[in-house]
Amino acid sequence: MTDRYEPYRAVARNASLDAIALVPGANFSRLFGKEFHQNERPLVVIIPADGIPAAIVPNLELGSFEALAFEGEVYDWRDQLGYQDAFDQLLGNMPLASIGVEGQVMRVFVDQALRKACASLVIQDTQKSIAALRLHKNDEELAAIRKAIGISERALANTIDKVAVGMTERAIENILVQNLFAEGAEDFAFSPIVAAAENSAKPHAHSRDDYTIVPGDSLLIDFGAKAGGLCSDITRTFFIQHCTDERAEIYNTVLEANVAGHTATKAGVTAHAVDDATTLVLEESGFGNRIRTKTGHGLGRDIHEDPYIMRGNHEVLESGTVFTIEPGLYDLNDMGVRIEDDVLVTNTGCESLTSFDKTLTFIG
Amino acid sequence: MTDRYEPYRAVARNASLDAIALVPGANFSRLFGKEFHQNERPLVVIIPADGIPAAIVPNLELGSFEALAFEGEVYDWRDQLGYQDAFDQLLGNMPLASIGVEGQVMRVFVDQALRKACASLVIQDTQKSIAALRLHKNDEELAAIRKAIGISERALANTIDKVAVGMTERAIENILVQNLFAEGAEDFAFSPIVAAAENSAKPHAHSRDDYTIVPGDSLLIDFGAKAGGLCSDITRTFFIQHCTDERAEIYNTVLEANVAGHTATKAGVTAHAVDDATTLVLEESGFGNRIRTKTGHGLGRDIHEDPYIMRGNHEVLESGTVFTIEPGLYDLNDMGVRIEDDVLVTNTGCESLTSFDKTLTFIG
Repeated sequence: MTDRYEPYRAVARNASLDAIALVPGANFSRLFGKEFHQNERPLVVIIPADGIPAAIVPNLELGSFEALAFEGEVYDWRDQLGYQDAFDQLLGNMPLASIGVEGQVMRVFVDQALRKACASLVIQDTQKSIAALRLHKNDEELAAIRKAIGISERALANTIDKVAVGMTERAIENILVQNLFAEGAEDFAFSPIVAAAENSAKPHAHSRDDYTIVPGDSLLIDFGAKAGGLCSDITRTFFIQHCTDERAEIYNTVLEANVAGHTATKAGVTAHAVDDATTLVLEESGFGNRIRTKTGHGLGRDIHEDPYIMRGNHEVLESGTVFTIEPGLYDLNDMGVRIEDDVLVTNTGCESLTSFDKTLTFIG
Repeated sequence: MTDRYEPYRAVARNASLDAIALVPGANFSRLFGKEFHQNERPLVVIIPADGIPAAIVPNLELGSFEALAFEGEVYDWRDQLGYQDAFDQLLGNMPLASIGVEGQVMRVFVDQALRKACASLVIQDTQKSIAALRLHKNDEELAAIRKAIGISERALANTIDKVAVGMTERAIENILVQNLFAEGAEDFAFSPIVAAAENSAKPHAHSRDDYTIVPGDSLLIDFGAKAGGLCSDITRTFFIQHCTDERAEIYNTVLEANVAGHTATKAGVTAHAVDDATTLVLEESGFGNRIRTKTGHGLGRDIHEDPYIMRGNHEVLESGTVFTIEPGLYDLNDMGVRIEDDVLVTNTGCESLTSFDKTLTFIG
């Protein structure tokens, strides 16, 4: 029987650590095949380099935790007495000198409970090597991403059909959201961005209910669905009825950069090389001063995960990795254009998982 | 001009700390009046006990950060070079011996960047006293909570009208979600729970797409909307067409406990006393072995926040505090019943913000 903890034990051994701690989140869900979310009650699984794991679990969650068929000892705790005893007992029975944690996921109160239970414990951020276990998507994960993308693309098609001059960003977002769930989304991958005109130049814009779209406006829609615990992430930028020649030129520059990103992608190239090929198109246009972002990010159980597609990241992309290609040009006094696809790295190149039309499109 | 940082400076002074660090989340949104979310890029505001604040901001977010009209120095950083320099520079220019952080919000990688910039820095979890600043809801916050509740209650009414024998939990959830956004929700307060039969006994159940409801089933719906950045959180448990006498008795026991919670609530009583009055009803029924949870939690910008309504919490409830009263009885081999209201503590008693009918109701 294979040991499902072996990849995590290997992370510990490779970093000369005694154990790895996992808290609810993407790594936890992948290991146990069941989604758990963080809340105000600490839940931690400790996986030693050798030996049987142990867990700290809120008493309230014992029923759900049973479904994980966890092999080790469970230290449960109740709200009324607090959680520190459970940490003290676990570390009393499993003495550790050092532990690796998910630095982007574990919160400080858990870190402090570990330190309180064992003042000499060395806590090391092993986010990168734990997240690396999720780089290669298996068939089930790929099927879920494809499903999430299908849901998103159908929802988008049904939404732009309804866009009309005079609608607010919020009203359009509302239609999109209803379409997303009508198509079978389990959840958002993240809160959708529906942003027109100068609002489209903000990378993380919120939809406004006090601005109505007018002919000539850009309309940027960036959103995603969850299916089977995996995410999609798509952006398309439309124009309302028409646009100026300059805006069309900006749009087509971003499109050219997007295509360059696809062309540059294949197994064996670096994340740096993909960003470089994409960003060069933007830099060599007349709109280089509108560059605000890197090319993309890995996509899976988390909406943002490794690999980050940016210059300086010399990680080699391997077959089975999924990431976004999302070049954009932004001017806070004008508008923003972003065109974002989700792609799968293959041995021969790059398969675009998104297939929504990306030629310059007028709607409304 | 009032100093908007004074409440945080006071938290630092009262704990004999040199400063408070805030990261994106509920406290940050309340202070700056603008929602920021955590991602893989650290963004931190440092508020000293005395003097001008400073911030570490991803270059990508500078545009959004400008809207905060931040008074202090901003140390921005770019993905390509990483964030440690910004931490080093800030702490070089603002030497600190100790700092209070939001232990339930700040993640370990930010904690480690602070420690790396200043090895001797004492990092103390001041979650409790920072969160206490959000206990009393102002008029604007209360209006937003009322709006979120109105959206939720209309969505629920429109959903149960459509429930029919043979539907899956997932299909019902789908209708609920579409109704939520049609009524004007900005976002979920949390992922909805739609759970029938034995699935309703799990406190954090996921809706199933392989179980169809049959007459006699319980159907528990626990969900909430966001409006103006504030949350609602409501649970109602229905039965499909009919139920056994025992299940009706269980339902009415939970209802009696819910009402006891309302009756026990007013300014000046403790959280302990409210839980005690509520839970005693359950304990003194024939179903005491089905108790799994405390009575409730504070509600505001976070779906779970202070005060936690449980025995042992001797915090005194003050006028203006909002929390949930959500007693339940759960048996994993049978079903669960939970009836959850959102209430406002007043000087004379307790105002129920939720008004959805809670008498035993048959649907489908």
